[in-house]
Amino acid sequence: MTEEYNASKELRELEIYNTIELEDLAKDYMPKGGFDYLAGASGEEFTRKRNVEAFKSKGILPRVLADVEFPETNTKIFEHDLKVPFVMAPIAAHGLAHDSKEAGTAKGISEFGGTIMSISAYSGATFAEIEEGLNGNPRWFQIYMSKDDQLNKNILDEAKADGATAIILTADATVSGNRDRDNKNQFVYPFGMPIVSRYLTGSGKNMSLNNIYAQSKQKIEPKDVTFIKEYSGLPVFVKGVQTPEDATIAIGAGADGIWVSNHGGRQLDEAPASFEVLEEIAEAVAGQVPIVFDSGVRRGEHIFKALAAGADIVALGRPVLFGLALGGWKGVKSVLEYFESDLKRVMQLAGTQTIEDIKNSRLKDLSDWN
Amino acid sequence: MTEEYNASKELRELEIYNTIELEDLAKDYMPKGGFDYLAGASGEEFTRKRNVEAFKSKGILPRVLADVEFPETNTKIFEHDLKVPFVMAPIAAHGLAHDSKEAGTAKGISEFGGTIMSISAYSGATFAEIEEGLNGNPRWFQIYMSKDDQLNKNILDEAKADGATAIILTADATVSGNRDRDNKNQFVYPFGMPIVSRYLTGSGKNMSLNNIYAQSKQKIEPKDVTFIKEYSGLPVFVKGVQTPEDATIAIGAGADGIWVSNHGGRQLDEAPASFEVLEEIAEAVAGQVPIVFDSGVRRGEHIFKALAAGADIVALGRPVLFGLALGGWKGVKSVLEYFESDLKRVMQLAGTQTIEDIKNSRLKDLSDWN
Amino acid sequence: MTEEYNASKELRELEIYNTIELEDLAKDYMPKGGFDYLAGASGEEFTRKRNVEAFKSKGILPRVLADVEFPETNTKIFEHDLKVPFVMAPIAAHGLAHDSKEAGTAKGISEFGGTIMSISAYSGATFAEIEEGLNGNPRWFQIYMSKDDQLNKNILDEAKADGATAIILTADATVSGNRDRDNKNQFVYPFGMPIVSRYLTGSGKNMSLNNIYAQSKQKIEPKDVTFIKEYSGLPVFVKGVQTPEDATIAIGAGADGIWVSNHGGRQLDEAPASFEVLEEIAEAVAGQVPIVFDSGVRRGEHIFKALAAGADIVALGRPVLFGLALGGWKGVKSVLEYFESDLKRVMQLAGTQTIEDIKNSRLKDLSDWN
Amino acid sequence: MTEEYNASKELRELEIYNTIELEDLAKDYMPKGGFDYLAGASGEEFTRKRNVEAFKSKGILPRVLADVEFPETNTKIFEHDLKVPFVMAPIAAHGLAHDSKEAGTAKGISEFGGTIMSISAYSGATFAEIEEGLNGNPRWFQIYMSKDDQLNKNILDEAKADGATAIILTADATVSGNRDRDNKNQFVYPFGMPIVSRYLTGSGKNMSLNNIYAQSKQKIEPKDVTFIKEYSGLPVFVKGVQTPEDATIAIGAGADGIWVSNHGGRQLDEAPASFEVLEEIAEAVAGQVPIVFDSGVRRGEHIFKALAAGADIVALGRPVLFGLALGGWKGVKSVLEYFESDLKRVMQLAGTQTIEDIKNSRLKDLSDWN
Repeated sequence: MTEEYNASKELRELEIYNTIELEDLAKDYMPKGGFDYLAGASGEEFTRKRNVEAFKSKGILPRVLADVEFPETNTKIFEHDLKVPFVMAPIAAHGLAHDSKEAGTAKGISEFGGTIMSISAYSGATFAEIEEGLNGNPRWFQIYMSKDDQLNKNILDEAKADGATAIILTADATVSGNRDRDNKNQFVYPFGMPIVSRYLTGSGKNMSLNNIYAQSKQKIEPKDVTFIKEYSGLPVFVKGVQTPEDATIAIGAGADGIWVSNHGGRQLDEAPASFEVLEEIAEAVAGQVPIVFDSGVRRGEHIFKALAAGADIVALGRPVLFGLALGGWKGVKSVLEYFESDLKRVMQLAGTQTIEDIKNSRLKDLSDWN
Repeated sequence: MTEEYNASKELRELEIYNTIELEDLAKDYMPKGGFDYLAGASGEEFTRKRNVEAFKSKGILPRVLADVEFPETNTKIFEHDLKVPFVMAPIAAHGLAHDSKEAGTAKGISEFGGTIMSISAYSGATFAEIEEGLNGNPRWFQIYMSKDDQLNKNILDEAKADGATAIILTADATVSGNRDRDNKNQFVYPFGMPIVSRYLTGSGKNMSLNNIYAQSKQKIEPKDVTFIKEYSGLPVFVKGVQTPEDATIAIGAGADGIWVSNHGGRQLDEAPASFEVLEEIAEAVAGQVPIVFDSGVRRGEHIFKALAAGADIVALGRPVLFGLALGGWKGVKSVLEYFESDLKRVMQLAGTQTIEDIKNSRLKDLSDWN
Repeated sequence: MTEEYNASKELRELEIYNTIELEDLAKDYMPKGGFDYLAGASGEEFTRKRNVEAFKSKGILPRVLADVEFPETNTKIFEHDLKVPFVMAPIAAHGLAHDSKEAGTAKGISEFGGTIMSISAYSGATFAEIEEGLNGNPRWFQIYMSKDDQLNKNILDEAKADGATAIILTADATVSGNRDRDNKNQFVYPFGMPIVSRYLTGSGKNMSLNNIYAQSKQKIEPKDVTFIKEYSGLPVFVKGVQTPEDATIAIGAGADGIWVSNHGGRQLDEAPASFEVLEEIAEAVAGQVPIVFDSGVRRGEHIFKALAAGADIVALGRPVLFGLALGGWKGVKSVLEYFESDLKRVMQLAGTQTIEDIKNSRLKDLSDWN
Repeated sequence: MTEEYNASKELRELEIYNTIELEDLAKDYMPKGGFDYLAGASGEEFTRKRNVEAFKSKGILPRVLADVEFPETNTKIFEHDLKVPFVMAPIAAHGLAHDSKEAGTAKGISEFGGTIMSISAYSGATFAEIEEGLNGNPRWFQIYMSKDDQLNKNILDEAKADGATAIILTADATVSGNRDRDNKNQFVYPFGMPIVSRYLTGSGKNMSLNNIYAQSKQKIEPKDVTFIKEYSGLPVFVKGVQTPEDATIAIGAGADGIWVSNHGGRQLDEAPASFEVLEEIAEAVAGQVPIVFDSGVRRGEHIFKALAAGADIVALGRPVLFGLALGGWKGVKSVLEYFESDLKRVMQLAGTQTIEDIKNSRLKDLSDWN
């Protein structure tokens, strides 16, 4: 895989029937190694598949006399007024999907407006390149901690200088999951990671995920949360929380938000679906801090269910990247627009005028859903 | 899809082994766009499929020493004595299935006798054309409310003049579900909707369902029930109820009947099967008003289970339309006869002499039914 | 199907790996109409399939320090000492499987020895022909009641004269199930039913099951049990019991045994598996009378589980008939021997020395078994 | 199958993505009879398949702020310090997989180091041959008891002389399971069993498993445990325990360890998965003696879950033999290394520094996992 990586340069709006199908479509637009890296997950991908399927374990109960018209999807997190209850999840190496890299995603987000870009520490674009697309829109910065706190400080300084309004500490990925597809493909990143490259042995280019993760800090603990919060002065999310225990510990250490995620099933396989653990975490968090939820969201119904089960905001991952692969920033915008309109339809049909109404909805347990 | 739509003119009795197979048979008799519109549903059609499958979550417990012979399927709703506990569900655009449109369905019903036609506001035939087939048999009128109450009054006047003995307020379809098949087919109705066409911009012809629904009223609320009831002086069903809460609210607003339905899975996907929510709604209704049940009924066993779980009457949809596609009014009559004889066989085998006996039956929870 | 029916005359011992595979093997030995009649069931055959599959809902818990050797399968029912806890279930028209008809099955049973033949009223062989094979071995007679009690008396007289030691009243088949395969094949019996032919309009030959059942009595009730018991002076089983309620009523009417069965899934589809209802029936019966169990038994494990869940005796149906089709009486004997040795192996491995030990075994609920 | 058996002599390290795939790969390296014997199981192999699948009934809950780095897999059983919490399960006839027989497996184990070889009484190699590979590494001896206690004494003497530090009494295999594959292949062992051959009529060569088991003792009971313990002076495991009752009885008879196993699904089919019975057994054992667990372990996640559910040590079976087939002792070592590194990754991702941490982990019930 050291040969040239030819990512698509396609630029076009997408007609989207559903985001499930985007994966198959994107497969034809992406080199195999890149596609498998993005679409694949760990082990036999039980958790990845269950992330999507487990939404079916709860049914939405439509309320049909609820006097709803023009449902309002706007909400707020920290100082940001959002037009939709979803943001971009942090994902590494957008350049695998499209030649425009993270700048393409950022432009799609800024053209859509009213939401937040999460910039991954493993971005293939620089802050400056991303800003060209993001154009002043809000951003959060996701950090993989280094073993060296000085480097962490440097990187936090840069992110803050770039305008990040929150830091996302990824805590569930201290080593790489057991990714069969990548291992079989002998996948290495075909380009560097300029944000962190100074802190790596090697630029990131031609390095495997195992190699890169090995250079980050394994021993993530509560005081890391405190450190980031105090040093940066920014709100901190702990990302990868899958238990009420960790949510409580994180909040105790100063976390300003809990990010429920299993990394899209890419880390520990045979773990529960992210949606399956959300409700008990939300009960533990009990409104102390906002909850962001990701892993498996493919439909407006999924956003609705996540909010009804306790999330405040949903983060979108693979579908946006597939949109990027298929149409560049225009494809990204199409995907975001799809989610917005799909959510509005679901809200109308479910009889919920506002995001708050969704949160107050009752879901029905469905037995034998799988 | 603006070319001529060639619906079948076939007229014949059907030999029916089961109504599940009618769908595949009808596929060959209907233009693809029309078939997909009728057979399809929203999202990944989870709810559509579950509507049929979820009947398996409960088993009928046959009583074998119950002294039954010639089971009696007759029942009563409002002023109507029915020979069977099922009626025709309101469905738009029967002309997609057969050249005779709603008049064909109506004739099948009148030839069968002892049941009720539900006329959809989105009928492709006029009241007068339908009456040619219906021939004085009882009918209910299903309304999609307009934003303009005067138009609602006009349409109610017409339905009443046509002899409707009840109004069915469809409350679960204030916008269209996310129908992939229709979207991919770029489906538009190939003919107009004469009953509502005065109230549409456009006749209905060459319009999409999204377009048509957009012109109806989104803000359905309890006082709409009261309005219809008071203005028409007719009993009102609220159709699309899927929660005990809505059933209670509807009754509080004056509803004379609760119509449990999820629109055949055509509106909100990842909602429970209609059969799954029936029992808890019946408990809330507690006999105050009759319950009509639809969505997923394909067998005599399903009618039995719906009645045992709390319904008073079952409404049939797609299977009747597939019968229409395959054999015109004769096909419709064959389907109705099939359900009647299938129900009688089930009643005999289950040891239930009357509809009341069915209602007093116990069903057994079956785990891992799916 | 009025042409000649060519049943096999093959006579050979079978090497049996498992009885599931016998069905596919028999398919090649039987005319399609006969095979589908025997293998098929009602509706979509949900209950037929579940009869076999539902055994997996409970796991056998092997006891490994139980000091077992040469497990003893002998048991007793009424006056009969049996070498195995299984008997032949009553099945109509063995001639569909083999040219030797019921006489072939009977000979297989008598050569195996130590068990009981159930003779169906719809046998294709006469009592005299069956006795040629049965050779004095014990037999029970299964009756479908006629509407005319005098005829019932005549037939009971004949069965008693033939030496029946119990009467099995089939109560779950007052009309035929909805058998798609037979309907599609336009299946009619290719030969007469000499035992009941005097009481039919027509000999049974070229008649459908619907036709034949229609001539029997539909109104089965508790006093029929009393009548048979008193008139015949023989113990009476009520066959087709699927509820504790019916078991209690039957015993109240004098039944000497409860036969839990759903007719192999041939009557009411979407009913529970026979195994699923056994335990609660056994609790209601509480040892007052013996319980015979059938429907779905294919393995020694199934016999074990049925006994552990409350049955006293298991009845075998289709596998024996497939054995008949494949090898005549020798095939029947092979099937019976297979079940005996398979049960002994299971008993050894489960740590149960006697049938009583099996009855005292605990089964483990297995979730998501299906 | 009396012709020459050509087992592979391949010697190579394996690149292992997961051990599930080793089975298919090994299929091409092994004669069909040998492969089916090893890979196959009893009945329809429900229990074999469920052994692996049932691990999905519980999800690992990753703890992400647990301050973990370089997870420590070392543990202790009896006097042995192990570097990993897994040992080799006793398996007969390694020569089916590889020409080096048990000596190959033993060498793989000794090269890996820090674990224990279990030597099966049905080994195809002699103690001396195995020692050539094992090279002084620790070993346990697995015994199938003979009906003759003197022979049992002789064999225990030999095992003790060979250096066994514990005796594993296999109690769940007093006769062979109903193994369709072997029966269809008319499988017989292609070589002798030198350890027990003096006690068999025949050397083991060209004998079926049924034949060999028939010569062993069926009546295993608590006093056999006591006998082995007292005669050998070694700790005794009872292997094949699947109930709390047997665990309690075994401990009462002096067992020094409980070995939870269903023999890889090879004995009684339609039994629960081994993992399904572990937790209730562990509760009954309550730490009185160590628990070894086998049947179905294919991933680091499985080892983790077994330990979290109450096991102290896991035993590996088929994957190691497939490794032997594919690469001789080097393949064995590769498999062991894979499990070690996979477990370490799982521990890191799950936030568990030590084996004790795993044992204190909470698993989450996953409904509809299958």
